[in-house]
Amino acid sequence: MGAYEKLTEHFAKLSHLNGAAAMLHWDAAAMMPKGGAGARADQLATLSLMAHEMLCAPEVADLLAKVQEAGALAALGAWEQANVREMARARSHATALPGDLVTALSRAGSSCEMVWRSARADDDFAALSPYLDEVVGLVRQAAQAKGAAFDCAPYDALLSEYEPGLTADEVDRHFDALAAFLPDLLDNILTHQVSPPAAPEQMSAAVQEQLSRQLLAMLGFDFEHGRLDVSMHPFTGGVADDVRLTTRYDEVDPLGSLFPALHEGGHGMYERGLPQAWRNQPVGNAMGMAIHESQSLLVEMQVCRGDDFLAYLAPLLQKVGGVSGPGWESSGLTRRVRNVARSLIRVEADEVTYPLHIIHRYRLERAILSGDLAVADLPGAWRDGMRDLLGINMPNDRDGCMQDIHWMDGAFGYFPTYTLGAMAAAQIYRAADAALPDLSDNLTKGDFGSLMAWLKDNIHSQGCLHAKADDLLAAATGKPLDSAIFRQHLEKRYLGD
Amino acid sequence: MGAYEKLTEHFAKLSHLNGAAAMLHWDAAAMMPKGGAGARADQLATLSLMAHEMLCAPEVADLLAKVQEAGALAALGAWEQANVREMARARSHATALPGDLVTALSRAGSSCEMVWRSARADDDFAALSPYLDEVVGLVRQAAQAKGAAFDCAPYDALLSEYEPGLTADEVDRHFDALAAFLPDLLDNILTHQVSPPAAPEQMSAAVQEQLSRQLLAMLGFDFEHGRLDVSMHPFTGGVADDVRLTTRYDEVDPLGSLFPALHEGGHGMYERGLPQAWRNQPVGNAMGMAIHESQSLLVEMQVCRGDDFLAYLAPLLQKVGGVSGPGWESSGLTRRVRNVARSLIRVEADEVTYPLHIIHRYRLERAILSGDLAVADLPGAWRDGMRDLLGINMPNDRDGCMQDIHWMDGAFGYFPTYTLGAMAAAQIYRAADAALPDLSDNLTKGDFGSLMAWLKDNIHSQGCLHAKADDLLAAATGKPLDSAIFRQHLEKRYLGD
Repeated sequence: MGAYEKLTEHFAKLSHLNGAAAMLHWDAAAMMPKGGAGARADQLATLSLMAHEMLCAPEVADLLAKVQEAGALAALGAWEQANVREMARARSHATALPGDLVTALSRAGSSCEMVWRSARADDDFAALSPYLDEVVGLVRQAAQAKGAAFDCAPYDALLSEYEPGLTADEVDRHFDALAAFLPDLLDNILTHQVSPPAAPEQMSAAVQEQLSRQLLAMLGFDFEHGRLDVSMHPFTGGVADDVRLTTRYDEVDPLGSLFPALHEGGHGMYERGLPQAWRNQPVGNAMGMAIHESQSLLVEMQVCRGDDFLAYLAPLLQKVGGVSGPGWESSGLTRRVRNVARSLIRVEADEVTYPLHIIHRYRLERAILSGDLAVADLPGAWRDGMRDLLGINMPNDRDGCMQDIHWMDGAFGYFPTYTLGAMAAAQIYRAADAALPDLSDNLTKGDFGSLMAWLKDNIHSQGCLHAKADDLLAAATGKPLDSAIFRQHLEKRYLGD
Repeated sequence: MGAYEKLTEHFAKLSHLNGAAAMLHWDAAAMMPKGGAGARADQLATLSLMAHEMLCAPEVADLLAKVQEAGALAALGAWEQANVREMARARSHATALPGDLVTALSRAGSSCEMVWRSARADDDFAALSPYLDEVVGLVRQAAQAKGAAFDCAPYDALLSEYEPGLTADEVDRHFDALAAFLPDLLDNILTHQVSPPAAPEQMSAAVQEQLSRQLLAMLGFDFEHGRLDVSMHPFTGGVADDVRLTTRYDEVDPLGSLFPALHEGGHGMYERGLPQAWRNQPVGNAMGMAIHESQSLLVEMQVCRGDDFLAYLAPLLQKVGGVSGPGWESSGLTRRVRNVARSLIRVEADEVTYPLHIIHRYRLERAILSGDLAVADLPGAWRDGMRDLLGINMPNDRDGCMQDIHWMDGAFGYFPTYTLGAMAAAQIYRAADAALPDLSDNLTKGDFGSLMAWLKDNIHSQGCLHAKADDLLAAATGKPLDSAIFRQHLEKRYLGD
């Protein structure tokens, strides 16, 4: 067996190990009784430690050195070369951090998250502050260690965990462009927006579930290779051949289960469409968090909140859901699912204000990591930013700087991918629309076939063949990420042509 | 850290790995969509290989040698000494087989099981025969390798995988005693037995589930540390702090969900009652398969098919289940759940004929492994045994030698534990009854509190402290396994005092 074959065997085993952990994460959120938490934490910590050991094993370095020799690499095909690149990337992230820092980060993150749950409920930032401060101190160390290992800025090293090759310069360029027009656009929309009609009717959880399944089947989601269950926060888990989606049912808010189900369905279709020939190899994984989010937002925001699909959805909800009245008619439903508002909570935000929530967090996390902003001063900085960017006066910290779990767990550098994903979704959808003359007609019939086939060919089946999301976007849409397309999408949808 | 502490750390990690695998096995049976089977097989094979590597690691041998030195071992407490014994036992089973034999067995078992599913449906033993023959050949090699490693007879080495220290001589002694009276007892019962009344009423799956949960709560099963779900074959999985029970619902056969739920509840209470201080250590595991089965059969057979509890159950089923008529009255229900019959299928057999099914399999598997019986001749030998032991003429092989999965997967030496467990259940129940003067009264009120507390003290919390099931039985009941007690139980229940 050659060095490349040995590597593929090693990484396949690592993938099985990570797949086992992914299933257990899903179970913890969707099935596990409370009392199983301790045993589960032990199981996951063990799997994660073993995966880390597999990545750091010295023989992997030797094998990678062999296949990366100029002659050896050139002899491989494009997919194999990309596979080697992704193997090296995974290893570099694992070896960049000393083992005791990994353990310290994991422990500090767990403690901070635990304190956060009660501190948030009590609106008590002072109780959280020392724990978050410890996490931030360790993340700073990690960023510096990775920056030194990868020869890049510390924050760029964090970004590259979630989005290969992404730099803060690129994020700045995109976010500056958004910040330049979004506040005015928001004012403009709010001035002209007509309030949506009320829709007081309830829908049972059973009917919502039936509708969610019907909509997912319509997307093409294969229930022979996946499930839909309930969890507190909707997410997509599992592995490519066994995709576990979740949503949640609230009888007074049916749209609050259906749109999350569609959103997760977009993630799920990406996972299912990853290249079958490269299953369990690094190059067979999804491209990065921005492209992953683009697939969920393309389905949820671009398509399912668009005119074509809503013309199909309104009568379906009336018929299967047994609801009626102005809020369920096509025009009323459209106004409800596109209502724009200055709001406190990111996960409930509409697509116009959402990027402002993200830009706000991006600026704060950069200031925190650089040391310009002390953790203790975060609540004040949060208030200032919400006022400046969104025109909101914060009533408390609970719905402010304590609303998200990301920083508590040490996930700095993740937030930007949400909005880069929203931008990519607009760009990819425009390319699909241009390539598929019948797309609009198909969507008014609830027919996702041509769209999903196009996405599979151009995005899903590409795995990690490209080194960067911009390269994938260039291949699929003709150019790297372009904020103008997202702007045009918002202006067209919310201000009319 | 001393050698013993290093071992406990190593075995805790192994336990977490095995716990992860246990959760994934449960998911495969209770949740996984069909299309996830391939990915799951890869995940489980990887976890199993890693667990095997952890057991075989040379440093474990060094550490065990250190703690097993006479002075070092004597310095440890009784539980720690038993823990070392169980560590050594686990390692000896892992290292006894060469790696390629383990892999060959796993592959042959998977192939045989796959062929078995269709061959059984087609009643085509000839199609199965070569695959089963391959499994048998490999199991023979494994038995010889383990026999040589443990200095015991090959079949004893297989038995000891499932029941530490059990020998064929002991099984022979018990089974000869049963075979000496069971056929006559069966004739006698069938002569005097009054046919049970019909109970044609259906019960919805939802009501059966509600009743199953109510009965499990009554046993003391803690749903904060476990779940009840559905699978094709009821089983108990998961880990001690997160016990996953399954049953199945058939609207025309409510007792076919309730009694399996109670049976699995007995297994589940054992898992939950294992010593908390020894979680994730070998000595904290259940004693063996016979004692595990004794806990399910004690609940299902000794208690729940007994007069006291049935006096409580009959009105509960009428009230909650909404059923009525002679088949649901206490006396009619009793006759239904204790009906004895010569039947083809082991898992559907009553407690009188069940041991005959097991003795039959035990004799056949010993003949197969010794080479006295060729796999190709199994159907004929099955027919002969069923006629001689149970007085049944086999109509086909599907419901004969192809009914069980055990041999297909290479599990030889497992069957005897079912009946040893039934015998132990009678013996343990008698001891509990003698120790608890109010037991009968309590059970007529559905109050399992005193029984479960006694079982926890005397069986569950003992883990693997004792080297053999007989030692545990002697400590809990005053003597090692005694077939006379099981005989007395059957004669009393089925022939009256």
